[in-house]
Amino acid sequence: MSAWTGDTADPASVDLTPVAGGIAAVAGVAAAGVAAGLRSDGRSDLALVDVGRRVPVAVTVTTNQVRAAPCEVTLAHAADGRARAVVINSGNANACTGDEGLRASVASASAVADALGCATDDVLVLSTGVIGVPLALDTLIGAVPALVADLATGRDAGDRAARAIMTTDSVDKQSAVRLTTSDGEVSVGGMAKGAGMIEPAMATMLAVLVTDAHAEPDVLARVLRTSVERTFNRISVDGCGSTNDTVVLLATGSSGVAVGEDGLTRAVQHVCAALAEAIVDDGEGTGKTCTIRVAGAPDEDSALVWARAVAGSTLFRAALHGADPNWGRILAAMGTTSVRFDPRRVGVRVGDVEVCRDGMAVPFDRSAAADRMVGPRVTIDIDVSAGPSEASVLCADLTPEYVAANAYYTT
Amino acid sequence: MSAWTGDTADPASVDLTPVAGGIAAVAGVAAAGVAAGLRSDGRSDLALVDVGRRVPVAVTVTTNQVRAAPCEVTLAHAADGRARAVVINSGNANACTGDEGLRASVASASAVADALGCATDDVLVLSTGVIGVPLALDTLIGAVPALVADLATGRDAGDRAARAIMTTDSVDKQSAVRLTTSDGEVSVGGMAKGAGMIEPAMATMLAVLVTDAHAEPDVLARVLRTSVERTFNRISVDGCGSTNDTVVLLATGSSGVAVGEDGLTRAVQHVCAALAEAIVDDGEGTGKTCTIRVAGAPDEDSALVWARAVAGSTLFRAALHGADPNWGRILAAMGTTSVRFDPRRVGVRVGDVEVCRDGMAVPFDRSAAADRMVGPRVTIDIDVSAGPSEASVLCADLTPEYVAANAYYTT
Repeated sequence: MSAWTGDTADPASVDLTPVAGGIAAVAGVAAAGVAAGLRSDGRSDLALVDVGRRVPVAVTVTTNQVRAAPCEVTLAHAADGRARAVVINSGNANACTGDEGLRASVASASAVADALGCATDDVLVLSTGVIGVPLALDTLIGAVPALVADLATGRDAGDRAARAIMTTDSVDKQSAVRLTTSDGEVSVGGMAKGAGMIEPAMATMLAVLVTDAHAEPDVLARVLRTSVERTFNRISVDGCGSTNDTVVLLATGSSGVAVGEDGLTRAVQHVCAALAEAIVDDGEGTGKTCTIRVAGAPDEDSALVWARAVAGSTLFRAALHGADPNWGRILAAMGTTSVRFDPRRVGVRVGDVEVCRDGMAVPFDRSAAADRMVGPRVTIDIDVSAGPSEASVLCADLTPEYVAANAYYTT
Repeated sequence: MSAWTGDTADPASVDLTPVAGGIAAVAGVAAAGVAAGLRSDGRSDLALVDVGRRVPVAVTVTTNQVRAAPCEVTLAHAADGRARAVVINSGNANACTGDEGLRASVASASAVADALGCATDDVLVLSTGVIGVPLALDTLIGAVPALVADLATGRDAGDRAARAIMTTDSVDKQSAVRLTTSDGEVSVGGMAKGAGMIEPAMATMLAVLVTDAHAEPDVLARVLRTSVERTFNRISVDGCGSTNDTVVLLATGSSGVAVGEDGLTRAVQHVCAALAEAIVDDGEGTGKTCTIRVAGAPDEDSALVWARAVAGSTLFRAALHGADPNWGRILAAMGTTSVRFDPRRVGVRVGDVEVCRDGMAVPFDRSAAADRMVGPRVTIDIDVSAGPSEASVLCADLTPEYVAANAYYTT
């Protein structure tokens, strides 16, 4: 977690202990993952998370105007602040599919609800995969009995669910943490998928989080919003905001412990940060994860705007790939934003090597700076000398492999 | 010019005839290009355009907050609406170089002014190349006598100047047109350089235009602003706004003809369009030029926002490279903008193949659509069915070669 500043400075009163696994690390959470046949390569493509009864839930979805059917259905089903299960398919985003797509998402929820013996609107639906292709609803519904039969608690079931939501991900992404406070002990676990169409300022990518803490929906909504804003919303793989981004946070309350909003936020943010970082680490065709840290900003929002501009710069990301300490591209990217700064006060460090001071080159050892950019973790520190605030964004390098991976996605 | 909608619909009363060459196609314009030694590869790197006396001039420069020294000096020298000569170096952008950089730009102008026998503030200075490296001023000034001695009228001299401003360009970029109206006949010629750090919504890249039309500075400023907005500001190679973009338009008036603002705008826009298109055609490592045309918009500004979002999408540009008619990425890119539209009214055509209607897939021949994306020219037509307005943006594909070209630029 060293790359992620959002995860530093835990209050002393809060003890966070990373634990193995993801959602299954939370007591009483059942998970499943099967190959329904939605993917042409036969890999598992249908996951289910079931907490066994209606519990408080919070949801965030993409800010993209072109919002997929499952986002609409999940928002509607979570509108009462309660849900029991989440069904997730890969292989098809069910986006740009019109009313038929909406009906397919509702029918998916309904099929799962019937099998679990709960109400349709207690099942949330998440989809990921290709855009603009009708969902093979019969195939999905046909697999629901096997999916529900696969439900189990424990690591293996959690692993199966985490693998079933992968698209071009090369590894599954899971994280869990145990939070110990004076009020008691709770767990937070989560899984996510990433790889492409990853961009800051989005809602976020697909992720499902569960905690056994007791929390009301309004608290849960604030906890999720804060955590997502500081983690998933501060990463970028390719600057392309998805139609399907969704994060779900379920609070089973089975621990019987209410740890307070601050403590729960720390724990949820920790898991979100781990998953977000894992998404960048596994970005399509990428080879490095770079932390762009902007300090000395008048406020955090300004720092974020500048950090995002650098993270989104095609030229900076190509230089990152080549381990080229071409800091002029960093200043040029910041300069394209509408948030004003004085270029003559900006300093830049590549790792611990200062390359720019007062907006100008300083003599530096080019090979030492290049060495700091070899990866797999790179840190760029930018100081605009204009205030006390800072923010960090994680981005990936731009590689020929990314282009190749995305040049022939549907053909 | 078929890719460029901004160049259609010439009024019948205006006769535009493309002519050979660039700035040298305008009577009385002298040009020069020499190898001053600013580039490490020994190629020519210093150009001069001299119209022989103070004439009306208009200038636009980058909107990037990190603005290079030559932009500042050129704005100051053109503030009185008059100039005589433009000196342009490649090999060094003289950006992020502080007060020393400003002094170097003024000294460059001064050295040229002394050699021409004119005032320093009648010489404009343009630079392009690496950012953050001090300009080798002595090297530049040492080459000024040879540069001035090289001044000549005619095609060969124009070619030498156009080649001396190239950086990673693979070909020089020149265009000229003869405008015949009832008022008489004038010429407009121009040259430009491009290749990388090319993004819409910029001021523009380096370009120098000359006309022998008679025009006052205020008219010239409007003509240039309109032409640049419709041409250079509607292209993108890599979404990265430069620190040095500058366009200069000089009007010698030597024809003795004042053709009216509309006619002059048509002619200047024609030359700008040709140069802008040439810049995209020659984008670093790119292989295709794609026109993104958005129609059915409520107004031109909205159409532009959506077209630019598609042109700037890393995923769309990778699909363009792979000739993959993955239209979902087009809608996803449009959806990330804050200008509202109804996804369910959007249609998309790849060349003449309809791939999306009412925001959903239509059955289409995938190989036929892919065939329309082979290049070197591709057209994407998007109809948002919300009004009478349209706009087009030109972009390039994202290729492994672009990444390779930009991964090791300074190392």
